[in-house]
Amino acid sequence: MADILHRVGIKASLDETYKALTTREGLAAWWTNNTQGEGNVGGVIQFRFSADGSEIGGFDMKVLELHPARRVLWQVVGGPEEWIGTKISWDLKVDGENSVVLFKHQGWKEPVEFMHHCSTKWAIYLMSLKSLVETGNGAPNPNDVRIYDRD
Amino acid sequence: MADILHRVGIKASLDETYKALTTREGLAAWWTNNTQGEGNVGGVIQFRFSADGSEIGGFDMKVLELHPARRVLWQVVGGPEEWIGTKISWDLKVDGENSVVLFKHQGWKEPVEFMHHCSTKWAIYLMSLKSLVETGNGAPNPNDVRIYDRD
Repeated sequence: MADILHRVGIKASLDETYKALTTREGLAAWWTNNTQGEGNVGGVIQFRFSADGSEIGGFDMKVLELHPARRVLWQVVGGPEEWIGTKISWDLKVDGENSVVLFKHQGWKEPVEFMHHCSTKWAIYLMSLKSLVETGNGAPNPNDVRIYDRD
Repeated sequence: MADILHRVGIKASLDETYKALTTREGLAAWWTNNTQGEGNVGGVIQFRFSADGSEIGGFDMKVLELHPARRVLWQVVGGPEEWIGTKISWDLKVDGENSVVLFKHQGWKEPVEFMHHCSTKWAIYLMSLKSLVETGNGAPNPNDVRIYDRD
C-alpha cells in the first residue's frame, strides 16, 4: 500500500476551510466546476473533469465521515481502477492564524506512474483550495494549472 | 518506510531538463538561489533556504548517480533529522514533446506531518523546475511559492 500525503496552511478559519470541502459550491470552486451529487454522510459526490472542451473522466466519492471544522473522509466508489476503494481524508486543525489541512489519499495498491501524477496534481488542487479560501478565487478544472501537456 | 512521489511533463528536451538538475546554475534557478558545492558523482551539493531575510536551514546532498539525460540520484547527508539517509531520484524519459520527470523522495522512516509538508513543497518546486526549463524563469527560494504562513 502507498499513500499520497500533503499539507497546506490556509489563512482562514476552520469553518471557512471546512465549508470549501463539504459544499457543492466550495468543491466546485477549487477542484472541478463539474461537481454534482449528495454531500451528506452516505451520499455520493460526482466530480467530472474536462480538457479542451471534452470530458476526460472523474471520480465518485462516497462521504464516509463529516466532523464539522475537523475532518472529512471520502471513499472512491467510481473512477480509474487505481482509485477504486482508496480513501481520501482531510484533517483540519488550528495553528495561529492558519487552518492546517492534512491531506491523505490512502490505499494505493502500487506506486504506479499514475500515482506520481496524482500526487503532484493533488498539490496543485490544494493550492487552489488555499487560494479559494484566502482570496475567493480558486483554479478548478477546467481552469486548473496543468502539470503535463495533456493534463 | 514511506515515499514522496511526483511527476511533471516539461516541454523541452531531456538534455535541457537534465542540465537544470545537474548544474549549479540550473539548481539555483528553480530550487534555491543559495546552492553551492560539487555536483560530480561523490560530491556534495549544499542547498540553503531563507525566509524573511534569515537562513532557515537546508540540505546537503551527496550525488550518488548521474546518467546523462536519464537519471540523477542524491542521498541526503545533512539537514533535518527526518531527511538524513533518504534518497531523492529523478528519472527522465521522453513522451512526445515532453520530458517526463519521475521524482521519488524515498526512505522516510515515518509519515510524519513534516513529510506531508515536504510532499506539497516538492510539487511546488517541480513546477518551478518546469517553468524554468520551459520559460527561463523559475521560482527558487527565497522567491518560492509559499504553502504555509511561515514556509
